[in-house]
Amino acid sequence: MVRLNCDMGESFGVWKMGKDEEIIPYIHLANLACGFHASDAVTMNRSVELAKKYNVTIGAHASYNDLLGFGRRSIPCSLEEIKSIVLYQLGALNAFCKSHGTYVSYVKPHGALYNDMMKDENIFKAVLSAISSYDKNIKLMILSKQDNEAYAYTAKMYGIELIYEIFADRNYNDDGTLVSRVNPNSIIEDELDVLQRMKNLIDNGYINSINGNKLFLKVDTICVHGDGNNALNFIRALQKVIN
Amino acid sequence: MVRLNCDMGESFGVWKMGKDEEIIPYIHLANLACGFHASDAVTMNRSVELAKKYNVTIGAHASYNDLLGFGRRSIPCSLEEIKSIVLYQLGALNAFCKSHGTYVSYVKPHGALYNDMMKDENIFKAVLSAISSYDKNIKLMILSKQDNEAYAYTAKMYGIELIYEIFADRNYNDDGTLVSRVNPNSIIEDELDVLQRMKNLIDNGYINSINGNKLFLKVDTICVHGDGNNALNFIRALQKVIN
Amino acid sequence: MVRLNCDMGESFGVWKMGKDEEIIPYIHLANLACGFHASDAVTMNRSVELAKKYNVTIGAHASYNDLLGFGRRSIPCSLEEIKSIVLYQLGALNAFCKSHGTYVSYVKPHGALYNDMMKDENIFKAVLSAISSYDKNIKLMILSKQDNEAYAYTAKMYGIELIYEIFADRNYNDDGTLVSRVNPNSIIEDELDVLQRMKNLIDNGYINSINGNKLFLKVDTICVHGDGNNALNFIRALQKVIN
Amino acid sequence: MVRLNCDMGESFGVWKMGKDEEIIPYIHLANLACGFHASDAVTMNRSVELAKKYNVTIGAHASYNDLLGFGRRSIPCSLEEIKSIVLYQLGALNAFCKSHGTYVSYVKPHGALYNDMMKDENIFKAVLSAISSYDKNIKLMILSKQDNEAYAYTAKMYGIELIYEIFADRNYNDDGTLVSRVNPNSIIEDELDVLQRMKNLIDNGYINSINGNKLFLKVDTICVHGDGNNALNFIRALQKVIN
Repeated sequence: MVRLNCDMGESFGVWKMGKDEEIIPYIHLANLACGFHASDAVTMNRSVELAKKYNVTIGAHASYNDLLGFGRRSIPCSLEEIKSIVLYQLGALNAFCKSHGTYVSYVKPHGALYNDMMKDENIFKAVLSAISSYDKNIKLMILSKQDNEAYAYTAKMYGIELIYEIFADRNYNDDGTLVSRVNPNSIIEDELDVLQRMKNLIDNGYINSINGNKLFLKVDTICVHGDGNNALNFIRALQKVIN
Repeated sequence: MVRLNCDMGESFGVWKMGKDEEIIPYIHLANLACGFHASDAVTMNRSVELAKKYNVTIGAHASYNDLLGFGRRSIPCSLEEIKSIVLYQLGALNAFCKSHGTYVSYVKPHGALYNDMMKDENIFKAVLSAISSYDKNIKLMILSKQDNEAYAYTAKMYGIELIYEIFADRNYNDDGTLVSRVNPNSIIEDELDVLQRMKNLIDNGYINSINGNKLFLKVDTICVHGDGNNALNFIRALQKVIN
Repeated sequence: MVRLNCDMGESFGVWKMGKDEEIIPYIHLANLACGFHASDAVTMNRSVELAKKYNVTIGAHASYNDLLGFGRRSIPCSLEEIKSIVLYQLGALNAFCKSHGTYVSYVKPHGALYNDMMKDENIFKAVLSAISSYDKNIKLMILSKQDNEAYAYTAKMYGIELIYEIFADRNYNDDGTLVSRVNPNSIIEDELDVLQRMKNLIDNGYINSINGNKLFLKVDTICVHGDGNNALNFIRALQKVIN
Repeated sequence: MVRLNCDMGESFGVWKMGKDEEIIPYIHLANLACGFHASDAVTMNRSVELAKKYNVTIGAHASYNDLLGFGRRSIPCSLEEIKSIVLYQLGALNAFCKSHGTYVSYVKPHGALYNDMMKDENIFKAVLSAISSYDKNIKLMILSKQDNEAYAYTAKMYGIELIYEIFADRNYNDDGTLVSRVNPNSIIEDELDVLQRMKNLIDNGYINSINGNKLFLKVDTICVHGDGNNALNFIRALQKVIN
């Protein structure tokens, strides 16, 4: 079964973001911020409590240490630092999970760290090494591409299982990488198109690349956004498509 | 056996503090900063590695979120926030411990949080609640006073064992509280006096209060400092006294 | 003429707060955050630009260094530190003002620093000293109370002029202090009541204290909020009252 | 006259760095940290006071916002952000200067921002734009290279005067750029060699590049370090060379 994942717990102090309470009944996997790009200790405590209440699987949305840039900036880090910041955030989030009788099921690097991990094998290994040394039952969510096998091979060396993710509303290049956000066509705005596209992916196993080629992609989970005006309606419609 | 505990891992980024490598062979319990008053992810990783190498028991030195004030300022926090910041730091430090095949054995609140916990029962309970909901095998280090039983009673309700701590070089009031640092006699400067004082505590069970009264105090561990010029010599001398 | 002042420029990074663009045409004095409780360098640049465009007088909304607590927590600081943080924020905001061909006209301490300044004469003096040593043309906004003369006397020693502020929607004690927020009657919810109350203040020079006594208060400016659902309508109605 | 410049005011909270009090009598220009890579409001206040006491010219050592990385990491920023962070830090430092009856004379970007400015003309312009919009009497310190004229031409458009800097102990490439720190020969360790090298620069106008070619470089100031074990002796020896 394909499951929906959504970024959550991204408030910070008095600043609120997202409609977590509204969205959470309709998603399966909650990527919870860990204080490095968003969130704080109290917000994490409440976010875990909310996820537990709705029986939603919890992932650690680990990020570069960059509140001001919301984790979207590639902060130069040594590999030791990358491993260390993933461990720090994973452990911190898991403390709230243990406190509420649940646990972190997966790590999804956030923003720039996610992109850097997909581009740089050493960063990918640093993330895997962090998870592997902490708990081999925790999975790693990555972008599903044409060369998933290479990632799977590396992950296996660390004893870590991967979760392959598709972005519902993003256009893809022929190799399965995302069309860059600097390209005006990076986002598919029409929600019906997006729904149709996801239906095709689930029924027939492929989406069309931006060049019109069939792109067969493994999909465990689809990433949706919780902050648009129509987010809730869209997620409910997508739920019907994937079931 | 009375053991020595020492604050460690208090560097931050390029700024170094303490002589951890020199001191660690001579202490038993390392209170490791968790990023809120000092330390960072890389420093925590290395501090845990160092403690593991010397087989030193690891404690989470949890603090108010206050790098600029080094955790010495009492930051107004709700009880939910206190519980949450203890959980956050405990989990973060334990991640590095798990990664190095060890674990956090105790929590020692740092600086202002330590003082506030000793003065305010609700804060004490918030700290206990954090530890208890995370792992009941983790102990809590507190200041040994005349009214230890009251603390022990509360801790027992949370299923948490206490570690009673004495400060080697501090003068005490008759009730077992520390003479405030604003008092010029708060610190005992003469190291031979301090050693004699600790010898008497171990042999006869008491120290003299600042008023010259016998103060019988339970002692599991003595807190020593790693940053003075003569710190290493003093610690080695104290080791001989307590053995 | 009584003027309206409003907190502005309180976004931080990706997190937005307030409806500055909507509100600013209807207010006279903009209290701009300086990066310690909210805002960041880019937000400050844009906020100053906006204020300049609408010819709104700019004040430095200086705060304790506490993004997580939004400056609402009383952070223990030495007087040297209070003077220094006010100087830092005042200078930083004024840099953007100079860059846009304008200047900081006044300082309004924010949140806990505002309350602490009203309660502790040494903190009040530390704030005055910061402003005075920077530029004696810059004024200080304080809470108008029954004992304004005492504040004015101290301010005069530093060569600083005061701006007396009333909170439109807050209930007052007999001495002109605000009814604490822990009291359920601290806020006057009914907007028509608030408007009537402000009309009476301007026409007759007094408001009723929470005990029903006439409280004569000097008023240079009324503080309004920019973030409620009806904020814009209320501010426009209040504008008519005060003109 | 060639003057010595030195990074100062780089402590943060309880963490100390450098021997500012010892070094300052022997240097002419103090590059003072502004809270983004090091320092805090109190440290800035004291650093400005110290510089004023010794009649040392003050520069704003403006940095990317990166305490953890000490400003040595290239943080991706928009040009608006670069202009804004320079304005923020320049204004903040100048507030302490005004408070002590002095002023900021120049800006020296720190660490990664310095390197990025030398490499990217748009960043150079953003820095110039910040200074120019604040106060055209403030100069900008840059690395002296073979192509100084190009930088001078751009600076002139903004009405800003440049200060050309040489690093005493660094090896240079043929084009006047510094040999990268990843190269083991980037630093000249032998202090007598460094002194001889600076003497030759002042007497004959050139140093030898790492390839042995004569490198004629304009020099207004030489950068020295205040934190080595022999720093003070070296600086005093260099002073004799340049006079």
